[in-house]
Amino acid sequence: MQFLEASREQGIVTVTLSRGKVNALNESVIDEMTACIRDLAVDPAVRAVILTGQGKFFTYGFDIPEFLEYGKEDFLRYLTKFTNFYGALFLYPKPVVAALNGHTMAGGCMIAIACDYRIMVTGKARISLNEINFGSSLFAGSVEIMKMWLGQKNAEIAVYTGALYSAEEALGLGLIHEVAAEEDLVPRARRIAEEFAAKDGAAFGSIKKLLRGPLAERIRERERASLLEFVDIWYSEKTWNLLKEKQIRS
Amino acid sequence: MQFLEASREQGIVTVTLSRGKVNALNESVIDEMTACIRDLAVDPAVRAVILTGQGKFFTYGFDIPEFLEYGKEDFLRYLTKFTNFYGALFLYPKPVVAALNGHTMAGGCMIAIACDYRIMVTGKARISLNEINFGSSLFAGSVEIMKMWLGQKNAEIAVYTGALYSAEEALGLGLIHEVAAEEDLVPRARRIAEEFAAKDGAAFGSIKKLLRGPLAERIRERERASLLEFVDIWYSEKTWNLLKEKQIRS
Amino acid sequence: MQFLEASREQGIVTVTLSRGKVNALNESVIDEMTACIRDLAVDPAVRAVILTGQGKFFTYGFDIPEFLEYGKEDFLRYLTKFTNFYGALFLYPKPVVAALNGHTMAGGCMIAIACDYRIMVTGKARISLNEINFGSSLFAGSVEIMKMWLGQKNAEIAVYTGALYSAEEALGLGLIHEVAAEEDLVPRARRIAEEFAAKDGAAFGSIKKLLRGPLAERIRERERASLLEFVDIWYSEKTWNLLKEKQIRS
Repeated sequence: MQFLEASREQGIVTVTLSRGKVNALNESVIDEMTACIRDLAVDPAVRAVILTGQGKFFTYGFDIPEFLEYGKEDFLRYLTKFTNFYGALFLYPKPVVAALNGHTMAGGCMIAIACDYRIMVTGKARISLNEINFGSSLFAGSVEIMKMWLGQKNAEIAVYTGALYSAEEALGLGLIHEVAAEEDLVPRARRIAEEFAAKDGAAFGSIKKLLRGPLAERIRERERASLLEFVDIWYSEKTWNLLKEKQIRS
Repeated sequence: MQFLEASREQGIVTVTLSRGKVNALNESVIDEMTACIRDLAVDPAVRAVILTGQGKFFTYGFDIPEFLEYGKEDFLRYLTKFTNFYGALFLYPKPVVAALNGHTMAGGCMIAIACDYRIMVTGKARISLNEINFGSSLFAGSVEIMKMWLGQKNAEIAVYTGALYSAEEALGLGLIHEVAAEEDLVPRARRIAEEFAAKDGAAFGSIKKLLRGPLAERIRERERASLLEFVDIWYSEKTWNLLKEKQIRS
Repeated sequence: MQFLEASREQGIVTVTLSRGKVNALNESVIDEMTACIRDLAVDPAVRAVILTGQGKFFTYGFDIPEFLEYGKEDFLRYLTKFTNFYGALFLYPKPVVAALNGHTMAGGCMIAIACDYRIMVTGKARISLNEINFGSSLFAGSVEIMKMWLGQKNAEIAVYTGALYSAEEALGLGLIHEVAAEEDLVPRARRIAEEFAAKDGAAFGSIKKLLRGPLAERIRERERASLLEFVDIWYSEKTWNLLKEKQIRS
């Protein structure tokens, strides 16, 4: 693995995203994450997973400069992989705790909300589904999962404004479960993972399927169509120009 | 237009319901509102809509004295138009802000909750889905949209009690987004409409479809059957007598 | 009726579960409750039902010692009856108030959440869907109804931790509607039942079907499959041993 580090302690595996300064997501990262969680799913010694990032970002989201080089077809292939990845995470048979060590933006937020429990570092870090602010749409699954956690009212506000929420604000909205000081993030994530891991694995997996299976089915029915519309808007002149500006500024 | 006034300022259109003292809804009003929003939808210069009423009522709801003259078939035709109207509003491709200037009752509440954002005037004004208190049922769509905003628990309380909520209470329940003093209502509605209008229109429309499309589909599957049952109960002896009493008292 | 007592006052029937110290549920209890509510549904003089228990328990849930004597097929037959019972309660055409007089555990919690309104006694009583703590799964319906009341986030916490909630905590989560001191429980339940009963019965029944019918349909599509998986896990070696331990300790 080039962009992931995995460490294991007593059945709990911590997977750390490590790609440059902002852990931007590209196709290789998603390929690696997909393979990584697939392997951990079938490893009977693994009882829970912690997902985190190195540095000041959980992840900035998609690596926009890189994707501006992609044609429509290639980008659609990437998006399919990306939404399959968060779909697999959403129904993952083992507990997944997201330790949000820093900014959790756009596609990064989508990954975070597919997990079972989110602890976010207090301070300057922000979490946001901010796609609307560069003229981009969202995916059916990401919208459904936002609604699932926040309820319709707060979810609408979050995705229509593209607001950048602090950990405390995110907690108030129901977007995360817990706020932690920087030094407490890893121990708290570990403690929560241990609590999940202490439950009977078969019962946990069965109950998780009951809790999320019906929504996952409804997402599957709509995800593909939403990707096609997302791509159309992404490559529209107006949005394309906003993306290029964003690239220059960032 | 006989019962609507529309004014436009910098891409934001304010539509004001103006029918007598209580802005009661009848078939002509619904026909006009339907045509009005259909025209605004295709006008590229319109970026957001504000819906409000003149006087002390947003609207009292259905014009019951007038509908007591209707036969079942005609009433069903009206109800079909009415639910089609709130359905169109619910999926409207542009932002719609409801500036609730006064009492927002029954059918008026149904129109309000189909909008994207509700600001309600503080003071004596009340908002309510109070149909149960004159022995009437509701429509599938109105119930689903109430549940969408309030969650099941508060929605059940609201529709079972038919309680009349102040703006402050409605805010606490999640039924509205914001409370405003009378003099602040119009400027606040305008400010919110401007914030919506500043977003990319294509992205907004696409995200709104993701947020509401699945529920709209489920509503469509059930709306017709709910109208038939609504009509049966409306014309039952017991409810009919309550409606006539209500007419006399109001 | 061997395990139920029913008393009637002015159209409101109080059904009291009376089986030993903890009102444990077995097949006879469920048969009796099913027959009882079926009879009350068609009795035009009955306008509302109060469900409560005698002693310090609403109910402990399933009578595990008794079910450890059951083979898979018999247990599946019982579970089918049980889930049919809470399904009937969920869509009951008349109002049902649960007066939770004491501990409301596991299967008892499932019955409680199928009612329209829950008042819980303050003090030592706890309410919980604690199945995961003896390695058991849940049923599709019970999970869906928990999500309906608590929202996804709190529902996930409740069923993953199996936490025992006090009345005050349950109120905060949205799991109950009201807390009452022991001496106030019966009068408050009666008052609430009277308020429901004062509404037009046809309108109430119609609105309740609109509020709950769509979810009931989705539950029906999944309930059977969830029972089969529940049984598989129940009879797994690990869970079976936990159930036997639980029996010895309790």
